[in-house]
Amino acid sequence: MEHYLDNSATTIVYKEVAQKVTEIMTVNYGNPSSLHSKGMEAENELIKARHIIAKSLGAEDNEIYFTSGGTEANNLAILGTVNALKRRGNKIVTTAIEHSSVYETVKNLESQGFQVVYIEPDKEGNISIEDFKAEIDSNTILVSLMAVNNEIGSILPFDKVGKIIKENHSPALLHCDCVQAYCKIPLKPKKIGVDLATISGHKIHAPKGVGALYIKEGVRIIPQHFGGEQESKIRPGTEALPLIGGFGKAVAMADIQKNYEYITQLNNYAREKLCAIDEVVINSPKDALPYIINISVQGIRSETMLHYLEQFEIYVSSGSACAKGKPSHVLQAMNLNRDLADSALRISFSTDNTKEDIDALCEAVKNGLKTLVRR
Amino acid sequence: MEHYLDNSATTIVYKEVAQKVTEIMTVNYGNPSSLHSKGMEAENELIKARHIIAKSLGAEDNEIYFTSGGTEANNLAILGTVNALKRRGNKIVTTAIEHSSVYETVKNLESQGFQVVYIEPDKEGNISIEDFKAEIDSNTILVSLMAVNNEIGSILPFDKVGKIIKENHSPALLHCDCVQAYCKIPLKPKKIGVDLATISGHKIHAPKGVGALYIKEGVRIIPQHFGGEQESKIRPGTEALPLIGGFGKAVAMADIQKNYEYITQLNNYAREKLCAIDEVVINSPKDALPYIINISVQGIRSETMLHYLEQFEIYVSSGSACAKGKPSHVLQAMNLNRDLADSALRISFSTDNTKEDIDALCEAVKNGLKTLVRR
Repeated sequence: MEHYLDNSATTIVYKEVAQKVTEIMTVNYGNPSSLHSKGMEAENELIKARHIIAKSLGAEDNEIYFTSGGTEANNLAILGTVNALKRRGNKIVTTAIEHSSVYETVKNLESQGFQVVYIEPDKEGNISIEDFKAEIDSNTILVSLMAVNNEIGSILPFDKVGKIIKENHSPALLHCDCVQAYCKIPLKPKKIGVDLATISGHKIHAPKGVGALYIKEGVRIIPQHFGGEQESKIRPGTEALPLIGGFGKAVAMADIQKNYEYITQLNNYAREKLCAIDEVVINSPKDALPYIINISVQGIRSETMLHYLEQFEIYVSSGSACAKGKPSHVLQAMNLNRDLADSALRISFSTDNTKEDIDALCEAVKNGLKTLVRR
Repeated sequence: MEHYLDNSATTIVYKEVAQKVTEIMTVNYGNPSSLHSKGMEAENELIKARHIIAKSLGAEDNEIYFTSGGTEANNLAILGTVNALKRRGNKIVTTAIEHSSVYETVKNLESQGFQVVYIEPDKEGNISIEDFKAEIDSNTILVSLMAVNNEIGSILPFDKVGKIIKENHSPALLHCDCVQAYCKIPLKPKKIGVDLATISGHKIHAPKGVGALYIKEGVRIIPQHFGGEQESKIRPGTEALPLIGGFGKAVAMADIQKNYEYITQLNNYAREKLCAIDEVVINSPKDALPYIINISVQGIRSETMLHYLEQFEIYVSSGSACAKGKPSHVLQAMNLNRDLADSALRISFSTDNTKEDIDALCEAVKNGLKTLVRR
């Protein structure tokens, strides 16, 4: 029996979502840009999906721009903002625990001469709003922070930064990478002064290859691609309609409140059982998003335990899937000691998981501790 | 009965391809970047698809970079080349009949100060190799031309330009937008000196949302996105694995020679029957790719005829689907007279089409000519 506990890396596509994808591939297969009714039928699928996703964010339909995923949306938000506002200032404020698609993009801008401030987390992985207050100024053109960290699940003060940008009289746009938070906690970007918000399909049981950028009406960013008229020319190219339709279906299926309660129970159960193992330390803060628990199994290297567990069809992650084999920059930023960092594992849930998955994990970790060679 | 004759806009996804997409969404759903065996299984799907596509182009696996489609691949090729070579020269040579994802991109570069030469077609839509000989020089850093034009099907001298770049001692990279040619005629970029070649899935019965850029080994272009380690960092972001697997399946299913023969017969039949209608003029050159016939039904506006035909489930295009409602820049470049341009329709085939589709089309056009109001 499979125990897939790596849902922050990617999720299984729900059957109903896969059916929607197939329907669009084989029945409503027209090009939404075609003028004939076969094109119109396809366009209707696009309109429906856009509406579902807009509604889920408390947004208008024309504020949703489909992309190929979170990475493209993060790049578009950051590069599009900086290109639009570079005459107004030179400073970017972000954190030291962003996803690689944010930090590699701002690093590149830093190499071009932009001033980038990386706000450091405390040893629990929490980011303080006070640091934003101190850094955001009239020279700041972009603030980019994630809603939830992908490795340890800490929730960042993304809902408080918009107010600070106003108070500090900054021209900055506020970008929020909501990939790990979307459909897991309520997100209403407009209400909290977020100008740009990134979401992704494959973390919520939609297929890989689709995401979206929320762009608040009236906010102007510079497109990074050129071509046809699609997505108001902000993101040209034939729309990935089967995936977009599937994305809409997955969002429509997500019951945020109910799922949150279920995952919270699961998380409590897991923390209790994991804490009962002497060698296990929990790295995630107590108030982290319950979908993610980062632990260290002291004495056993992450990869060693990960491969031991996979024998029993138990799948967890060592850090982020996007940083295959590399040491985690997030755990480094938290100043986690070397032993803990080298033995870190991320457990991440979906509503498909049950207590049996956690039992299987804890049993296997305990057996691993007995049989695996210590470092 | 549906008569879908708009296969250059997009195609139906083959059942076997849709099955592959579903299998990856619901069984091999891991993240190819994950270290565990669930990730490895997913990575194997990626490796298989890449190999099929590489082989189809006479290329090595490491020369194929997956993108979200033709538009992204064209943007990456052009912007990536210009950013890599801008210190070597300032000139770009392209044609006046490129797809919008090429011409809008080079237009943007022109507005930034690059010199762009747009080679004009003759009145049949053919592009002369002599014009490339005259224009490519030591200041030219990029030559970008399509293999087959998407509106009229003319075949461009893409296989002869590589030699000229060498002869004229130009540092230029040669980019070829092969979206309409791929899997329809044999393409071996390396043999003909093409450095970068764009292909797309949804024109060959794979889903919308996936394409690839062939980048010849040793050729260096600058990535346009930043993030994880995927696609050798040339195109980061979690791979759209279901679509990539489907793309591979569609390529494996394509029998270029057999399909070409079938479509040639269909094209001959269509030309014969269409020419028998007094008001019909064929705009495509005689030696065009047989998959595309551009015609004008004199006296009836394109949109009027298109909507008349859709009543009978006959779907054709007025110009390119990417330029919804806009006058065709391709027909304009050919200096087609206003009457012909305003009444132009594109008929484009797949191997699903039969003579019955052409019979239905010709019958309906004839009836339309009797009943529709002339301009």
